[in-house]
Amino acid sequence: MQSAFRRPSEGTFRGFVRAEDIDAVRRLVAATGFFRSEEIAVAAELVEETLVKGEAAGYHFLFADRSEDTAEETNALDGYACFGHNTMTVSSWDLYWIAVAPQSQGRGLGRALLAVAEEQAAARGCEQMWVDTSGREQYRPTRDFYLSCGYRVAAQLEDFYAPGDDKVVLVRRLPGAAGSRIRA
Amino acid sequence: MQSAFRRPSEGTFRGFVRAEDIDAVRRLVAATGFFRSEEIAVAAELVEETLVKGEAAGYHFLFADRSEDTAEETNALDGYACFGHNTMTVSSWDLYWIAVAPQSQGRGLGRALLAVAEEQAAARGCEQMWVDTSGREQYRPTRDFYLSCGYRVAAQLEDFYAPGDDKVVLVRRLPGAAGSRIRA
Repeated sequence: MQSAFRRPSEGTFRGFVRAEDIDAVRRLVAATGFFRSEEIAVAAELVEETLVKGEAAGYHFLFADRSEDTAEETNALDGYACFGHNTMTVSSWDLYWIAVAPQSQGRGLGRALLAVAEEQAAARGCEQMWVDTSGREQYRPTRDFYLSCGYRVAAQLEDFYAPGDDKVVLVRRLPGAAGSRIRA
Repeated sequence: MQSAFRRPSEGTFRGFVRAEDIDAVRRLVAATGFFRSEEIAVAAELVEETLVKGEAAGYHFLFADRSEDTAEETNALDGYACFGHNTMTVSSWDLYWIAVAPQSQGRGLGRALLAVAEEQAAARGCEQMWVDTSGREQYRPTRDFYLSCGYRVAAQLEDFYAPGDDKVVLVRRLPGAAGSRIRA
């Protein structure tokens, strides 16, 4: 199972939302140790809103259900991604969340989730994918992850999250998007 | 009435939301000519969500009800502001909307709405107020307005809203906030 995520495709991940994902996402996001309780609550709310409103909520999900080799763990999810069109824009999408359970990290799952999210977004008109993350030292691996996936730092907003905790805005112009072809 | 907004205070504007504000905000925002139909819809939705959920929606409003000298106009509002705490942050607030009816512009109403919004936000823990606007030439007066109110450009995100339409992020560290005193 170590190479399960080497060649991602839409079929690799579950795209529909189940009621049990609310708790599963809450547990997963908490388990990473990267998020405040308010942020964990927001992650779960996006799942809940999607269960209630369906597509109209505007959130797309990719769930990596627990694989057999992590079956000893309490998480029902190995990882997940949540992304969507920013309705204030023509073709900018936001990657709201991407999280991989600690015991499932280092196997390319985050990279696979991101690649499939970009693929699905581009097919729906996304020209640029935007990600916000923290400028704190703890998040250096997160920033390096995005940089290694073709993202660049577009802005750093001082003290945005809290005093001493900047917001770093990263962006990738999707290569398959119509806009990037026109503007190339 | 020309000097009605020179000395703003919380009492100058209505803070509670009425059902008729949904349409009034939609008409006001459309009348400015600055916003796309999707953006106008979002402006109205924030009012609607606040009517349904109350404070839990997280949006604060300031309404400038139509004054007598603009009574010939069809707008029920001379202007309004919508702002709120960004729950992903400790003490950052967003100014979501500020709009003044065309026939009520040039009298300091926008400046008064902004001042009272900042005052109310600071009283509730806001240390920095953030505003997103467009980098297009049409929005130069908007950007100049914020710059003249003590805001600075924190970032410019290329093609964010649409190809050729950057997002400009402005911020003001509120002088009355505890955080800015501690960090001064």
